[in-house]
Amino acid sequence: MAATISPLAPKSYPDMPDLEGVRFATASAGIKYKGRTDVLLAVMDPGTTVAGVFTRSKCSSAPVDWCKAILKRGTARGLMVNSGNANAFTGRKGKAAVELSAQIASKALDCGVDEVFLASTGVIGEPLPAEKFSGVIDGLATFENPASWIEAAKAIMTTDTYPKVATATVELDGETITINGMAKGAGMIAPDMATMLSFIFTDAAISADVLQSMLSSQTDGSFNAITVDSDTSTSDTVLLFATGAAAKRGIAPVESIEDARYETIRAALGDLMQSLSHQIVRDGEGATKFVEVRVEGAESDASAKRIALSIANSPLVKTAIAGEDANWGRVVMAVGKAGEPADRDRLAIWFGDIRVAVEGERDPDYDEAATTAVMQQEDIVIRVELGLGSGEASVWTCDLTKEYVAINGDYRS
Amino acid sequence: MAATISPLAPKSYPDMPDLEGVRFATASAGIKYKGRTDVLLAVMDPGTTVAGVFTRSKCSSAPVDWCKAILKRGTARGLMVNSGNANAFTGRKGKAAVELSAQIASKALDCGVDEVFLASTGVIGEPLPAEKFSGVIDGLATFENPASWIEAAKAIMTTDTYPKVATATVELDGETITINGMAKGAGMIAPDMATMLSFIFTDAAISADVLQSMLSSQTDGSFNAITVDSDTSTSDTVLLFATGAAAKRGIAPVESIEDARYETIRAALGDLMQSLSHQIVRDGEGATKFVEVRVEGAESDASAKRIALSIANSPLVKTAIAGEDANWGRVVMAVGKAGEPADRDRLAIWFGDIRVAVEGERDPDYDEAATTAVMQQEDIVIRVELGLGSGEASVWTCDLTKEYVAINGDYRS
Repeated sequence: MAATISPLAPKSYPDMPDLEGVRFATASAGIKYKGRTDVLLAVMDPGTTVAGVFTRSKCSSAPVDWCKAILKRGTARGLMVNSGNANAFTGRKGKAAVELSAQIASKALDCGVDEVFLASTGVIGEPLPAEKFSGVIDGLATFENPASWIEAAKAIMTTDTYPKVATATVELDGETITINGMAKGAGMIAPDMATMLSFIFTDAAISADVLQSMLSSQTDGSFNAITVDSDTSTSDTVLLFATGAAAKRGIAPVESIEDARYETIRAALGDLMQSLSHQIVRDGEGATKFVEVRVEGAESDASAKRIALSIANSPLVKTAIAGEDANWGRVVMAVGKAGEPADRDRLAIWFGDIRVAVEGERDPDYDEAATTAVMQQEDIVIRVELGLGSGEASVWTCDLTKEYVAINGDYRS
Repeated sequence: MAATISPLAPKSYPDMPDLEGVRFATASAGIKYKGRTDVLLAVMDPGTTVAGVFTRSKCSSAPVDWCKAILKRGTARGLMVNSGNANAFTGRKGKAAVELSAQIASKALDCGVDEVFLASTGVIGEPLPAEKFSGVIDGLATFENPASWIEAAKAIMTTDTYPKVATATVELDGETITINGMAKGAGMIAPDMATMLSFIFTDAAISADVLQSMLSSQTDGSFNAITVDSDTSTSDTVLLFATGAAAKRGIAPVESIEDARYETIRAALGDLMQSLSHQIVRDGEGATKFVEVRVEGAESDASAKRIALSIANSPLVKTAIAGEDANWGRVVMAVGKAGEPADRDRLAIWFGDIRVAVEGERDPDYDEAATTAVMQQEDIVIRVELGLGSGEASVWTCDLTKEYVAINGDYRS
């Protein structure tokens, strides 16, 4: 938790509505940080279904392994998250720590060990002192009701400068269901998998396989389309819980992707996931600019996304943005290095609404002053038209500043 | 050309021996820089053979396209290089500029237009005012003899803080042949192709196909095994010229890779190319540490190299090195994100001679103070043992500092 809040932070938080079927408690276990909360415990009503997407890292953390193993059941009663220690690359000690963590939480929640999902975020390679959870979790006699989403989101922060929450409501059968979510992340953010930690809840009743389908289909355009530094975490976890409490209000469960309500909920979920993922980029370590990289006219959507990521991950593009320099030559370089089909002489590039390059060279009407004005804005759109096909993709990133280097030059110590 | 010389710069330059069959001239054409040389013209004796490797960027520069086209002939009489403008992404204007450049040089050298190799380095996207070469090149009545290698290397610098040269001599048939080379590069340095500009000369007589074989086979372990910032240039060019002047001293031409002398020369060339490529890394923009990343025990050499590059290109690993932080957890992260076969629980990691992790967790004998002492050195070796097979690779990189961001936040303007 940094002293200074990102200049790109949202100006206000949404008013998070109560969501029936889930309650939170936070605590200070002193895992690494002092004087702040570092444990989040969520308890969900019996019958809650769960879906998850996880890092594709070959060195995934012990809690990721745990969640993957118990996800098969499709149901959840508890979620425990700690910040300050990722319990990653901790060998047998790491496995023992997740087992102890789940035992402590299951005892407090009076549920099965394999109904407790776990996530840890923080330093890699240090053994997690899970016994510290015992004292604080056992003592949590009552959970807040209504749950405080902001407090929950704060407990899972590491280098984040602000808590990240989003909410959506959907009208179903004349009744309202709610989707609330939180996320954390600021560095070690790269796509191609579920990125960092995010926990999303709905009171709708949705069967586990349908829930998983909703979550997986919306990951590509949200958490898998952001990058801060091209570095992929060992701990990336997105969990979506459906408490089913809305069924008590007469909203029938969604048990098939053919159900007309599936698309309605899925769309709202997608917007919420995109909001959370953009909040992560806006808290990118050292970030001063929020950048959409849009690639159109590629041979395929997948090709467009790889080119967009090549641009969004280029240190030279990102430092130019930090310097408010309309250095579109570096965008050309990043298109060229992506290894994807591209024809230099068909390329066109826009910064904001200004076309800076066309047909493989500088736009004849290029206006440096107007382009610089675009670069001085806080939110910048870089658009590349390849002129080859109809493939398109957007990814979101931030600039690379001296502050990123400062934050990461001494994060661990 | 920066005011401050990289702290990793060589403490002295080698005494570059004369190399028969090539002469240099440098000039100030005022392409972009003031008060320094920015054009290098080399003239080679008739009969000089040439080999080249170039960027695989899909947006290669006009001079790269030119060189690729004329390389088929296998012979060269001239080389003209300018700094300050890359003549990349300049469309038809770029093609016209290389044609005019070659005409101006061929007139001065009294040779065919298609015997003149061209390279340009500097800003991307600005039209190259090739007519400026005319005044300065036409006026170069004489070439320095012996050639000044340091002056030649200085004329091709951009953000380089020092000129890069290397030399080797090889005994053949009781006589000595010489290999001299120069290189430039400090940013936009990434492997997977010939990286940045390097020009290497030998007085040995070597047929063009044999020369190409030598050059190509040594590129993977040298210029293709370095990275400063993971960004691949549009202009990467390595040219190797064999003037054949040694034939006058009775050293028969090397015309087959079965010739016993092939391996002797190839080995010396490889050492020289590695020296030049390491000099580029040591001049990495903002660099304060020179880092070898060595991966062993991978399923294949190619897999080892991809993992090594994932580590060497990770902003989080590089900022930790800048901060002298023995943050081996980030090395684990970078292994995990590489997408290559890896088994977390077999991983072992060394910083220098100190094993920091073994069997998927922190080494039981881990000593923070001893490891920090390694990180405080200027040259650091990070070694990863995967325990899967016999694949191995080394790549070389530098740290990522605030200075890199400062240099690239306002390079163009």
